[in-house]
Amino acid sequence: MSSYKDTIVALSSPPGTGAIGLVRISGNTAIEITSAIFQGKDLENAAANSLYYGRINDGDELIDEVVISLFKAPHSYTGEDTIEISCHASPYIIGRLLQLIVKHGARAAKPGEFTLKAFLNGKMDLSQAEAVADLIASETAASHKIAIQQLRGGFSDEMKQMREELITFASLLELELDFSEEDVEFADRSALSVILNRLEKALTVLIKSFELGNVLKKGIPVAIVGKPNAGKSTLLNQLLKEDRAIVSPVPGTTRDTIEEQLNIEGIPFRLIDTAGLRQTSDEVESIGVERAYEKMKQASIIIYLFDPLGYQAEILQTDLDTLHGIVPGANILVVGNKADLHELDAMYRKFAAFENMVWISARDNQNIDVLKLQLLNMVDTEKLNSGELIINNARHMEALQKTLIAVQATQELMQQTGNSELLAFEIKQALLFLGEITGEVTTDDLLDSIFSKFCIGK
Amino acid sequence: MSSYKDTIVALSSPPGTGAIGLVRISGNTAIEITSAIFQGKDLENAAANSLYYGRINDGDELIDEVVISLFKAPHSYTGEDTIEISCHASPYIIGRLLQLIVKHGARAAKPGEFTLKAFLNGKMDLSQAEAVADLIASETAASHKIAIQQLRGGFSDEMKQMREELITFASLLELELDFSEEDVEFADRSALSVILNRLEKALTVLIKSFELGNVLKKGIPVAIVGKPNAGKSTLLNQLLKEDRAIVSPVPGTTRDTIEEQLNIEGIPFRLIDTAGLRQTSDEVESIGVERAYEKMKQASIIIYLFDPLGYQAEILQTDLDTLHGIVPGANILVVGNKADLHELDAMYRKFAAFENMVWISARDNQNIDVLKLQLLNMVDTEKLNSGELIINNARHMEALQKTLIAVQATQELMQQTGNSELLAFEIKQALLFLGEITGEVTTDDLLDSIFSKFCIGK
Repeated sequence: MSSYKDTIVALSSPPGTGAIGLVRISGNTAIEITSAIFQGKDLENAAANSLYYGRINDGDELIDEVVISLFKAPHSYTGEDTIEISCHASPYIIGRLLQLIVKHGARAAKPGEFTLKAFLNGKMDLSQAEAVADLIASETAASHKIAIQQLRGGFSDEMKQMREELITFASLLELELDFSEEDVEFADRSALSVILNRLEKALTVLIKSFELGNVLKKGIPVAIVGKPNAGKSTLLNQLLKEDRAIVSPVPGTTRDTIEEQLNIEGIPFRLIDTAGLRQTSDEVESIGVERAYEKMKQASIIIYLFDPLGYQAEILQTDLDTLHGIVPGANILVVGNKADLHELDAMYRKFAAFENMVWISARDNQNIDVLKLQLLNMVDTEKLNSGELIINNARHMEALQKTLIAVQATQELMQQTGNSELLAFEIKQALLFLGEITGEVTTDDLLDSIFSKFCIGK
Repeated sequence: MSSYKDTIVALSSPPGTGAIGLVRISGNTAIEITSAIFQGKDLENAAANSLYYGRINDGDELIDEVVISLFKAPHSYTGEDTIEISCHASPYIIGRLLQLIVKHGARAAKPGEFTLKAFLNGKMDLSQAEAVADLIASETAASHKIAIQQLRGGFSDEMKQMREELITFASLLELELDFSEEDVEFADRSALSVILNRLEKALTVLIKSFELGNVLKKGIPVAIVGKPNAGKSTLLNQLLKEDRAIVSPVPGTTRDTIEEQLNIEGIPFRLIDTAGLRQTSDEVESIGVERAYEKMKQASIIIYLFDPLGYQAEILQTDLDTLHGIVPGANILVVGNKADLHELDAMYRKFAAFENMVWISARDNQNIDVLKLQLLNMVDTEKLNSGELIINNARHMEALQKTLIAVQATQELMQQTGNSELLAFEIKQALLFLGEITGEVTTDDLLDSIFSKFCIGK
């Protein structure tokens, strides 16, 4: 951390060829270094938050015509003097420019180092810094919403409030300790209990939200199963067909060969084609296809697709029971396919016992929208739309869990011994864990592990 | 062209994920449109050339926290009101932002349309606009140098000067025509001849520079030939080894399977591995390998690599003669390989008759630097370093050739008839061709063909 005052430089726009590239320099000597290579306005004496047109020269050689954005400390992203050079996005020019700036005394920035500076200079807390990376990585409305809420400080505010409650609690205890030699015990500890109960509840709600937050980050896993020829692949293609146009503009979307991302009204689903995992003749009854079963067990939703032709309600029930046997507590959506080939009325009657069943024709793209809506309904997205806080960061989750354990331990202690010193110790633990989230309590290792995942230039 | 007053929008930074993305809006309603979605400074009444921090909202939904660069007409790249939104470079956010801006009345920009606007609004001439695309595409010091010289207007100035000479000539002729009924002929036409001769010379120099400019743009083709086992592949790898680090940061460098780009002190070479083209046992004597010969004929330099073991000077001479027979006027660099395995003194003596021969050891990386310098010496880069104008654009070349033909026709006419009207016609032709270069004379088709090659956002 000792070097965090260095002036650093990096390409901040995505790499590649394009109209405009942005090279960012931050640090005490950012303006001095830029002045040495910039021919135009005298930047040392120029107004901040302004744009200056000019030329970048390497000695006599003109490297590019550029526009410079000048920010002065503390009114910049990093809180330091910052220059952004807007040049032609040619890898050759950007390479020359970076070399030139390094030659004049800047250091090549490490991943996330601009944001690390912003954190160290008090421009944002740690959870906000993490939200920056999440925001950049966001590919759906849902992950975008969570990231931007966190960046805006929604989560930080909640943490601050909890922290204040814990500090109130701790200071009440301190008061007791000061009087302990006089063997005074504050008569009414119910106020302390109230605080602990409130904290326990709030922590539990946040921890619970991780379940949704985590799947929203990674995509809600949906396994499509069914007997061969039920139409699984056709359904998969139909589901992806219209959506791909929305997903595909996002380069770098990781696509497992057997998993495809589907975006339904901003909520990401991961469709798992279990057909791709196995080659045996019977989807449900066969055994030993561990990997397919593993995937099914990990799925939040299982679509059980069947072709009603020659299929009886009793057989369907048996198959579903088998499925429930393999995946206890499975959240199964039963989908009847090939609705185009059969008498719908007769089918409705035949399978009337099954609630919430969806009839589709994968081939003719019938009712696929209904199926999508049904998938959406099976996810509790109320929290997302209500603007309630949702945790989607495993590190935060872990810290919240540790805090909860400490709070619960304090509750128990209150009931058992009531010893103020033990209580104070536990509550300090809780404060420590909570502080890890926003970065009041931090280590170089923690910062390294967080910021090394950033891209360079951020 | 009628729609060039539209307000347009595009992502101007390279696509992809990164710290900062730049969305650019240009046109009469750029500020109005941005104001409708930007929460921060009142842009309508804000100072130009300034930076404003704020938020982009889609209705109630916060899309991103951004910094806005405000430019007001005519002091912008396009000459119009221009806004650059510096946002988080997330494809999701950029997608939302572009959609939002289009929803508020901007049109998605066509490739090169910002630069087209700059041209149409008189911010740059056509050759400068073309230099912008060349600059972005520049991958070596040489192509960068030519593009930036052209962007700065070096070429435009020369064209302007020629144009003025032609106009002087034309107006002198006009004067004659006015008096023509009085059958007056200006006694001294030598002044006119001087102008034409000067033009002819200048045009010839420029046209000649295209030879260098064109290879500098595409890379100087170097074919490596030699008998099997002479060490061609090892040499190719050695040549590329150190250089690849310089070339590879450039994404999208087109690599034909049999051609590799080599950068020697900023000059691009294209190494053609003819070994990859053919499978016959003898490199020089075999016939019928048309494609390999074709490549050799196109090469500016042919490296003839041989293993001196058991090789006699007479045989080498015969092989070189054969090569000259296949490629008349070939520029051959003779390279003796495997210097590590042989007595150098003896080899020097044996092959003393061959001048400018280079001895190397491809395997041990001996003298590869000398070979590179020798390649560099075989290219006349004096023009490049002297700062003389170099043409590297085929369109300019064609227009200059047409101009030269018209000038030469005028010269002939002067000597033959001296008819002022015919002279005036020819000289107007010359003016027309010259005007095509800088865009005084232009058509929609020409503009389309030029700007459609640009990237979107430029």
